[in-house]
Amino acid sequence: MNWRQKLLDITCQNNSLLCVGLDTDVAKIPKFLLETSKNPLFDFNKMIIDATKDLVCAYKLNMAFYEVVGKKGIEALEKTIHHIPNNIVIILDGKRNDIGNTAQKYAQSLFDTLNADAVTVNPYLGKDGVTPFLDYKDKCSFILCRTSNPSAGDFQNLAVSSTPLYQIVAKKIREWNTNNNCGAVVGATYPEELKTVRTILGEHIPILIPGVGKQGGDVETTVKNGTNSQREMALINSSREIIFASEQQDFAEQSRKKAESVRNEINKYR
Amino acid sequence: MNWRQKLLDITCQNNSLLCVGLDTDVAKIPKFLLETSKNPLFDFNKMIIDATKDLVCAYKLNMAFYEVVGKKGIEALEKTIHHIPNNIVIILDGKRNDIGNTAQKYAQSLFDTLNADAVTVNPYLGKDGVTPFLDYKDKCSFILCRTSNPSAGDFQNLAVSSTPLYQIVAKKIREWNTNNNCGAVVGATYPEELKTVRTILGEHIPILIPGVGKQGGDVETTVKNGTNSQREMALINSSREIIFASEQQDFAEQSRKKAESVRNEINKYR
Repeated sequence: MNWRQKLLDITCQNNSLLCVGLDTDVAKIPKFLLETSKNPLFDFNKMIIDATKDLVCAYKLNMAFYEVVGKKGIEALEKTIHHIPNNIVIILDGKRNDIGNTAQKYAQSLFDTLNADAVTVNPYLGKDGVTPFLDYKDKCSFILCRTSNPSAGDFQNLAVSSTPLYQIVAKKIREWNTNNNCGAVVGATYPEELKTVRTILGEHIPILIPGVGKQGGDVETTVKNGTNSQREMALINSSREIIFASEQQDFAEQSRKKAESVRNEINKYR
Repeated sequence: MNWRQKLLDITCQNNSLLCVGLDTDVAKIPKFLLETSKNPLFDFNKMIIDATKDLVCAYKLNMAFYEVVGKKGIEALEKTIHHIPNNIVIILDGKRNDIGNTAQKYAQSLFDTLNADAVTVNPYLGKDGVTPFLDYKDKCSFILCRTSNPSAGDFQNLAVSSTPLYQIVAKKIREWNTNNNCGAVVGATYPEELKTVRTILGEHIPILIPGVGKQGGDVETTVKNGTNSQREMALINSSREIIFASEQQDFAEQSRKKAESVRNEINKYR
């Protein structure tokens, strides 16, 4: 199914803009699970998904946390993707990028081999590094625009003829959106920039917004600045705050409570 | 062993600045190997390595070509890394990048789990996305500066107070080099930019230079513009031209011939 229809349907069905980030750091998984499970990464994810799947519009899996475990991690990643219900958007967050020939392999890897609905892509190599992702017309590519980290401004704030680079990237995203399958990544930790990017992108381009929760982005400003006039087309991601809500046996139940509370807080401002 | 010592030793021992890129596209592997081998990706690499290991200073493995095959690809990647002789520099070319917390996982994945000597890193997220890589003091991080692809200029040429972005990145690389473990990636397809970057970086920072061979970069200009005054600290990468020199039974022998010819052509201008 086309990613946009899937996103609109699930946003409506679960009344949610919440994207839960499965940044499943093996060092932070409840200890009892490490002792009792043969595949703790997957079992942890399974329990979080089962506990939160009626509260989210998307799950975002950050590839680094799986790759660091080697082959077992990739296996857990594949099993997790398979376990996520069909009607929920799957974002593989790998921030991949390369020259055209190789970018095509990354696109194939993420969209075909791993079956993602959406991915994150780094724009530094320019259009031909992004095009192989955009050639998948039914998938969405969220292009890094203004990231959530403290050093984001090192390059993204540099002024090119008085326009900061991240705004130039936002304009390129709008320009590259000929297949209606571009998105942007903008950190909730930079609310003014988020507002500017939403203005540049218009109504129909989704923004994936990390940085609420542990990173400190404010939910109210994020919703107001990041959504379109329908208060949609924003995927507000929270990872650690939700999935590591507890280290006890009831961790999945606690993660559900936290997800529900974040989902509802988001909705308060829609 | 420290990456720099390893690079200096092997450059001297093999009299070579040639880096062979193991961009092992399964669609381009000789057909007979696909039919006879249980692990054709690895067997192909093994034969190329055995045929060229006295001619190179480094092997560069582009992660995309392994990831696209799934778990079997990761297994081939691991086995290939294990097969490369200890005295040759191993570069894992994944162009990874993320915010600090996650970048650390990528660094761990590439340097610890996979045992790379060097990696490629995308700078778009700024310093805190690069620092976790640079914290590995005995490893080298080649930061994308001026990539080899046609659209490289989309952002990398944008002028910030009349200085193109790629030069600002080059200056940052010099600034970030406090552990003496930064490198830069500059495409051979942009010889003037290569010269400028070498001037900015000075004598001791290595440049990984893709883009000779199939992409069309000129070897003489690459050597003259990319090396330091000792005609060292450049790793000149060629991938497809060497590893896919033939589709016949003698492919490894043909790849050796091509590697020898490129190595010697490079040395002609040193």
